[in-house]
Amino acid sequence: MAEAKIRLFVDQPLGSGQAVGLNPDQAHYLFGVMRLGPGAALRLFNGQDGEWRATVAQAGKRGGVLTCVEQTRPQQMPPDLWLLFAPIKKARTDFIVEKAVELGAARIMPVQTQHTNADRIRQDRLQAHALEAAEQCEGTFVPPVDELQALDKVLATWPADRHLLWCNEHLTGAATVLSRQERGPWAILIGPEGGFSEREQARLAAMPQVVQASLGPRILRADTAAVAAITLWQAALGDWR
Amino acid sequence: MAEAKIRLFVDQPLGSGQAVGLNPDQAHYLFGVMRLGPGAALRLFNGQDGEWRATVAQAGKRGGVLTCVEQTRPQQMPPDLWLLFAPIKKARTDFIVEKAVELGAARIMPVQTQHTNADRIRQDRLQAHALEAAEQCEGTFVPPVDELQALDKVLATWPADRHLLWCNEHLTGAATVLSRQERGPWAILIGPEGGFSEREQARLAAMPQVVQASLGPRILRADTAAVAAITLWQAALGDWR
Repeated sequence: MAEAKIRLFVDQPLGSGQAVGLNPDQAHYLFGVMRLGPGAALRLFNGQDGEWRATVAQAGKRGGVLTCVEQTRPQQMPPDLWLLFAPIKKARTDFIVEKAVELGAARIMPVQTQHTNADRIRQDRLQAHALEAAEQCEGTFVPPVDELQALDKVLATWPADRHLLWCNEHLTGAATVLSRQERGPWAILIGPEGGFSEREQARLAAMPQVVQASLGPRILRADTAAVAAITLWQAALGDWR
Repeated sequence: MAEAKIRLFVDQPLGSGQAVGLNPDQAHYLFGVMRLGPGAALRLFNGQDGEWRATVAQAGKRGGVLTCVEQTRPQQMPPDLWLLFAPIKKARTDFIVEKAVELGAARIMPVQTQHTNADRIRQDRLQAHALEAAEQCEGTFVPPVDELQALDKVLATWPADRHLLWCNEHLTGAATVLSRQERGPWAILIGPEGGFSEREQARLAAMPQVVQASLGPRILRADTAAVAAITLWQAALGDWR
């Protein structure tokens, strides 16, 4: 059986024979935009029960019901990796969120630093963007996107057992540094385009959880650094082996 | 002395005391848009002589002359890495070019595969985009962007001594595969969103220069795959150590 093309996130339990009710937006998308009718197949995921093939049981203008048929993909959780980054221009912030989902981050945390321009983000928009990235890239997990928090506050309550990779102009490359580290709870911190303030740098350097490493001899934009750092982490300590 | 903020690519020799003539576009940008006047400082690079501090000697509406003062950054050539990719939507193609420049690729080669939608690209626009990426990221090298070529043709004359990393669903991760390889001339091949045709796959698999590896268990968009693959290559065999 060919795989159904349409793939939808639903915030409901999925299981064999399970009925899934649709909200008006979902009904409009499936029946109005995509023109599905009763009996048509699609794929569902909810972030925890894997991906399921479902069929349309009832189609209406403002709602409808789907029936789960069989699991088509097991749930795939990412490794325990958080991505902290200072929001930049909208397009590049969207990009960082999209790439973090694709590459397999477990939590996305926008942080405000002393040199961050943004003093607010649209958390709901970024969360929707993360969901869309998972829908399009066959993912079964949607990382939560936190509200913007001050970096100082985040660091003040940083878990004792969670390593934090700080990519800066350190002498040793991230691949080498990470190859000497152990698996477990990790996070990656990507600074703002203007860099961290001296106070922030001193604070980070003093934290025992912080691991410093370089991302090569060139200057990378924040979005590039985020992708490169997640990639190297996944290859060394994540699930890319 | 504070570093001059404005950074300009010029297609002319740079050296101590060298006079650099400006074309009308450059004169408009420097004197009209950025409002530089005689004596003002800026930075220049030409892709081969490093970065130079220069000052405005003459400013005119349709031209002008700059004088090179001193080298502010040595020329930094990337490792001998080509990036081959199948062009996708405009924004993502631009993105691949920008990231290849930032991460340090020596040559950018758009290729047409059996499942590539694009049958033409704007080579001049992509080359200008590469130049702009180098200007903005403090790079001193601008990789050439080739015209679109058929992948078949490119492979038919592939250099015997150049390895080609083909990222697919191979069992072994790229970091592990690359850690067993030797430095030298390399290239990375990123397929179209629809994947390579069976014929293309058979051809690639039969080439002794081809090295297969995986980019993890998730499905990556072509632009993400390009950044991830260059990152892992740079960390293992390039200049990121």
